[in-house]
Amino acid sequence: MVALAGGVGGAKLAHGLARILPPGHLTVVVNVGDDFERYGLHISPDLDTVMYTLAEIANPSTGWGLVDESWQALTMMAQYGEDTWFRLGDRDLATHLLRTDALRSGQRLTEITARLAHKLGVAHTILPASDEPMATMVHTREKGILPFQQYFVKYRWQPTVIDLQYEGGDRAQVSGEVRAAVAAADLLVICPSNPLLSVAPILAVAGLRELIEQRQMSCIAVSPLIGGKAVKGPTAKLMREMGHEPSVLGIARFYNGLIDVLVVDSEDQQAIGQVLSQFPALSIFEMPILMKTVADRESVAQRIVDLI
Amino acid sequence: MVALAGGVGGAKLAHGLARILPPGHLTVVVNVGDDFERYGLHISPDLDTVMYTLAEIANPSTGWGLVDESWQALTMMAQYGEDTWFRLGDRDLATHLLRTDALRSGQRLTEITARLAHKLGVAHTILPASDEPMATMVHTREKGILPFQQYFVKYRWQPTVIDLQYEGGDRAQVSGEVRAAVAAADLLVICPSNPLLSVAPILAVAGLRELIEQRQMSCIAVSPLIGGKAVKGPTAKLMREMGHEPSVLGIARFYNGLIDVLVVDSEDQQAIGQVLSQFPALSIFEMPILMKTVADRESVAQRIVDLI
Repeated sequence: MVALAGGVGGAKLAHGLARILPPGHLTVVVNVGDDFERYGLHISPDLDTVMYTLAEIANPSTGWGLVDESWQALTMMAQYGEDTWFRLGDRDLATHLLRTDALRSGQRLTEITARLAHKLGVAHTILPASDEPMATMVHTREKGILPFQQYFVKYRWQPTVIDLQYEGGDRAQVSGEVRAAVAAADLLVICPSNPLLSVAPILAVAGLRELIEQRQMSCIAVSPLIGGKAVKGPTAKLMREMGHEPSVLGIARFYNGLIDVLVVDSEDQQAIGQVLSQFPALSIFEMPILMKTVADRESVAQRIVDLI
Repeated sequence: MVALAGGVGGAKLAHGLARILPPGHLTVVVNVGDDFERYGLHISPDLDTVMYTLAEIANPSTGWGLVDESWQALTMMAQYGEDTWFRLGDRDLATHLLRTDALRSGQRLTEITARLAHKLGVAHTILPASDEPMATMVHTREKGILPFQQYFVKYRWQPTVIDLQYEGGDRAQVSGEVRAAVAAADLLVICPSNPLLSVAPILAVAGLRELIEQRQMSCIAVSPLIGGKAVKGPTAKLMREMGHEPSVLGIARFYNGLIDVLVVDSEDQQAIGQVLSQFPALSIFEMPILMKTVADRESVAQRIVDLI
């Protein structure tokens, strides 16, 4: 099984899948459009969120970062007069240091991620969407063009988005590992991540969308919206700003051609008829998809597996 | 005033001098032979010890590293299976990150050190002995050739030293800042640092020894040995292994030609006659030089200033 995932929301379902599938049966392909450099460190926020979540060492209250984290390095950075809007935790720094050092020595992000995840006890495969650098650039009305982390963290996704660019996507190559995983998959799951900020940059990797469109296996998307609202984060706000209806209908339209099945929350049951009238080839299933606990993650994952 | 200093012992006297001299009147030229790279970070242990000590944020119990330090990043490194013999503290990491990032962007170590020290409130000048990389290599009987930090930290200076090399010293240039500081100095103080591991690599920077030998100002060395013993660290052991008598006589012989005045501890009073008989041009002063408290540091510094 292959899952496409971005940050916190996607990592939750990936975690559920990881827990119910036998070791080695899941490959999570992760967005790298959020990657950026800070203090010379290569930071891959989504890769880390997925890795920490699958390793069960993620911070349970934020969903990102590490449990038992501390902020001493950042406090010292502030003492040096540095701007500390990006919250680099002390334990988290170890990941960034090892990744950056390995990248500088010429290793591929795919290999590095595999080694780090293995060391943390992750029994499945985590693959960056590409080994090439990508950058989601957010064109905003109030602040101009912002690199993703500035939009998301520094300005807390408050500026109005007028356009998005997935820089480097056309030059980025699908790695052999991603190609092989998609080719071998029985099922592809698009996790309930932000379609525009997490899934679109994965699909923007040159050739990846085509690879999925030509697929033999089923492709299922789990709605990131429940009752027109995001569980957390800017999905609904951003869809609206970018001209997409912030609803399961908007999600169906966004993934049209890519998916065979859309999973929506039970709360959106009454919208199913409308979606089906516009996308009659789509299968729609409803189930409770809000994942508050690890048991919820497992239960949603199990129901998805049972759908096949 | 210019002071040559290595790590902990040298930093103590530099701190005393910094406290009694008006802001801007002291330049500390610091050994960079201990510098090394770890996880892609450029680490300058002696520069940091001097900077933290002058900023009064050094760990008072070890003399190196930062007060209120924690080791979360290192614990995470261990979780990744990394060898953690070099104790990189969380707060300390901020220094290494900022320095490394600035070096990669093409800034000189001298400029970077000035900026970091200024941000930490240091009112005097701290200069690396050179902007070029240097590496003290320790030839040992038991472990072969070791980079300095492996000898010193990993093997806790236990291997027998048969030779020392200051790699890069002949290629390293005296920076304009060091040249100007030495030229403008009324007094040059060689701090009670390890002569072979801290002072010799400073003097090994091409042209620096000649600059001091041609000096107009007085040059004073403070003995790093008291009663033939090092206050801390391998000075006596190493001098013995390298064929130098571990005594104030050995120190006088080591600095012969470079210094006008040798300051020894009151405990070594009876050795003064012997030193003078061999080095009649040398002036020798005895005073309590053990610096246990900040008041001790100030008192030794004040007595040295009063000597001029």
